[in-house]
Amino acid sequence: VTPEEPNFMPNGPGALLGVIRRAGTITRTELVAETGLPRSTLVQRVDALLDRGLLRVGSAAPSTGGRRAATLEFNAEAGVVLGVDLGATHARAALFDLGGQQRAEVTGELDIRKGPDTVLDWVDQASNDLLAQTATAPDALLAIGVGVPGPVEFASGRPVRPPIMPGWDDYDIPGRLAGERRIPVLVDNDVNIMALGEQWTSWPSADHLLCIKAATGIGCGIIIRGQIHRGAQGAAGDIGHVRLAGHDDIICECGNVGCLEAVAGGRALARAATQMGLDAHGSRDVVELVHTRVPEVIALVRQAGRDLGTVLAGLVNALNPSVIVLGGDLAVADEHLLAGVREIVYQRSTTLATRQLQIARSALDDRAAVIGAGVMAIEHVLDPAVVDRELRALAAV
Amino acid sequence: VTPEEPNFMPNGPGALLGVIRRAGTITRTELVAETGLPRSTLVQRVDALLDRGLLRVGSAAPSTGGRRAATLEFNAEAGVVLGVDLGATHARAALFDLGGQQRAEVTGELDIRKGPDTVLDWVDQASNDLLAQTATAPDALLAIGVGVPGPVEFASGRPVRPPIMPGWDDYDIPGRLAGERRIPVLVDNDVNIMALGEQWTSWPSADHLLCIKAATGIGCGIIIRGQIHRGAQGAAGDIGHVRLAGHDDIICECGNVGCLEAVAGGRALARAATQMGLDAHGSRDVVELVHTRVPEVIALVRQAGRDLGTVLAGLVNALNPSVIVLGGDLAVADEHLLAGVREIVYQRSTTLATRQLQIARSALDDRAAVIGAGVMAIEHVLDPAVVDRELRALAAV
Repeated sequence: VTPEEPNFMPNGPGALLGVIRRAGTITRTELVAETGLPRSTLVQRVDALLDRGLLRVGSAAPSTGGRRAATLEFNAEAGVVLGVDLGATHARAALFDLGGQQRAEVTGELDIRKGPDTVLDWVDQASNDLLAQTATAPDALLAIGVGVPGPVEFASGRPVRPPIMPGWDDYDIPGRLAGERRIPVLVDNDVNIMALGEQWTSWPSADHLLCIKAATGIGCGIIIRGQIHRGAQGAAGDIGHVRLAGHDDIICECGNVGCLEAVAGGRALARAATQMGLDAHGSRDVVELVHTRVPEVIALVRQAGRDLGTVLAGLVNALNPSVIVLGGDLAVADEHLLAGVREIVYQRSTTLATRQLQIARSALDDRAAVIGAGVMAIEHVLDPAVVDRELRALAAV
Repeated sequence: VTPEEPNFMPNGPGALLGVIRRAGTITRTELVAETGLPRSTLVQRVDALLDRGLLRVGSAAPSTGGRRAATLEFNAEAGVVLGVDLGATHARAALFDLGGQQRAEVTGELDIRKGPDTVLDWVDQASNDLLAQTATAPDALLAIGVGVPGPVEFASGRPVRPPIMPGWDDYDIPGRLAGERRIPVLVDNDVNIMALGEQWTSWPSADHLLCIKAATGIGCGIIIRGQIHRGAQGAAGDIGHVRLAGHDDIICECGNVGCLEAVAGGRALARAATQMGLDAHGSRDVVELVHTRVPEVIALVRQAGRDLGTVLAGLVNALNPSVIVLGGDLAVADEHLLAGVREIVYQRSTTLATRQLQIARSALDDRAAVIGAGVMAIEHVLDPAVVDRELRALAAV
């Protein structure tokens, strides 16, 4: 086993910034002790971070009886990032500072099928509006994170044959959004960034977390060791096409039979409700019928929870997560999906794996994805390798 | 998101050792350039590693036209580790150098149910024999890795209610094996260390790998980002109790119905063979019948492969691994289990997740676990935090 290649300088400015973020506040002397760096080298690197604005001198330096040593702290106001959540029929964009505090948000009804030109024009406009509205200088925008409702090659930010995004296959989203300053644009599928948003906001200490989006489609964002697990081809989390036994008569859009999504997704529930004589065209109509307490529809959602629970029970045994968060229209509507999931997971998973497992509905409702998109952008900006590279570039100017 | 706390000094001796292992050979001047450390600090840390024997001066320093700069390289002969694979009815122990080269091995028939005293006496004896046989000084033994056929709390090395290991529940294996020198003893379940052994030996570039052990029980070792995924309670990989549809008449030892292991494990196949009038008491008898080409038994193993494939198809969609390795008696016997697994996984998993997926039988046969146990010990010894701590302790003497 070859140790993993670090892509940043150990004890470089980026790594120091990480030490300081973890510490909260710290003095230069404490940093010397922590890192073993010679003081002159340390001071030089701290100065570079201060010059860049990523650090600031602490407001309240503690007294140690004698002279007060200046404390250093991370400056979350060194810039902003834009988080963008593109859904099938809606869009949402928000500005965040580098500490994850949201400054402003804009939402719109927007059909992803209108294609990249229309949709990304909306993003450009939203970005300009948000910067203007918060009186933020355009060059304070340091990165953009985008979530889309389909598979993405993360390294390039290009969608990979996304089923519900005609015109987007292999489209260079970062190239289109980066603008003249060529700022970094990170693109991932919506479920992965939802998982990131949930973890950042509600479950910061959960190393291993599953986040389900149950709506028209069903997907799963997987956090392992605190990071999104994307898998070998970036296809991880696609639980919508796991086969459910006993449903071989149901043909899925993927061409297979009995897929979870074809049995328990929003479209399937709407179809079942229609067959009962109710008026339902998609997952949102199903949610409406749940809200009006139509017992047959509540039973449908509960059963969808059991079907989802069957798939999750296997994943719980395999991955032993500490948290499962249920999000998406069908989950946030009411407790019924949750009840079905819990029923099966606690029945079917091993006792060791469920002993401390928490299964909860999303507390963020439909804001998990835009927060996660912002977090993805922040994590990129503060990545030690990125910080080191930027400071080197500044020094070279 | 708080960045992960590094548990070693960036650019400390342990981190430098990692740089040198990756590089193969490197000069001090190159190390200064690579790390940004002041030369005096670097030389001091390199000297500590040379004194400890973890580095050596390269045998063939390349000519650069002028004076030859001495190259540094990792010294895999700085010590040895012991790898121990304890199975249900067998045991195997081997000595490895720090580069993973095996020096000697011993195997024995040993029933794990005889309990910790008997079994760990065997390990002590094996350790002494292997050291004597290879003329290795006892204090060259730097760590022990142990695999056991049951769940383990990795942090403490204690089995957690292991079903087939009476007398071992919560037993302090490290405390018993560490000896007077208190050397580190790492304990994990057999499937996790099999996965590590497979990856180290056959799939070093696979970041995401599943390793199946199909024998009396069925388990799965999961490698994610190059490391064993143990999950929140160390219970990850327990796929033997995932429910297979259509088998609710089969009661598993765990009390649930339709578990994969109860349908497709070695005991279930032996029972089915017995019902056909054949003589089979466990997975090894089934393997014998496969070898003698009894068609009904071949069909049983093929169907077990399909059942296993059903569970793996879901895991492939969820985790998108690049490699699945099939090990254990039932897998290494012949191609039939593999054929059944491939049939279902390629039929049922998504095209994106299977595009580059390799599914292969173990090339290590029953040696994967002992190799993995050795690798686990080596990775501990060379962990930067451990190296730093050890050198600090030596300096303090």
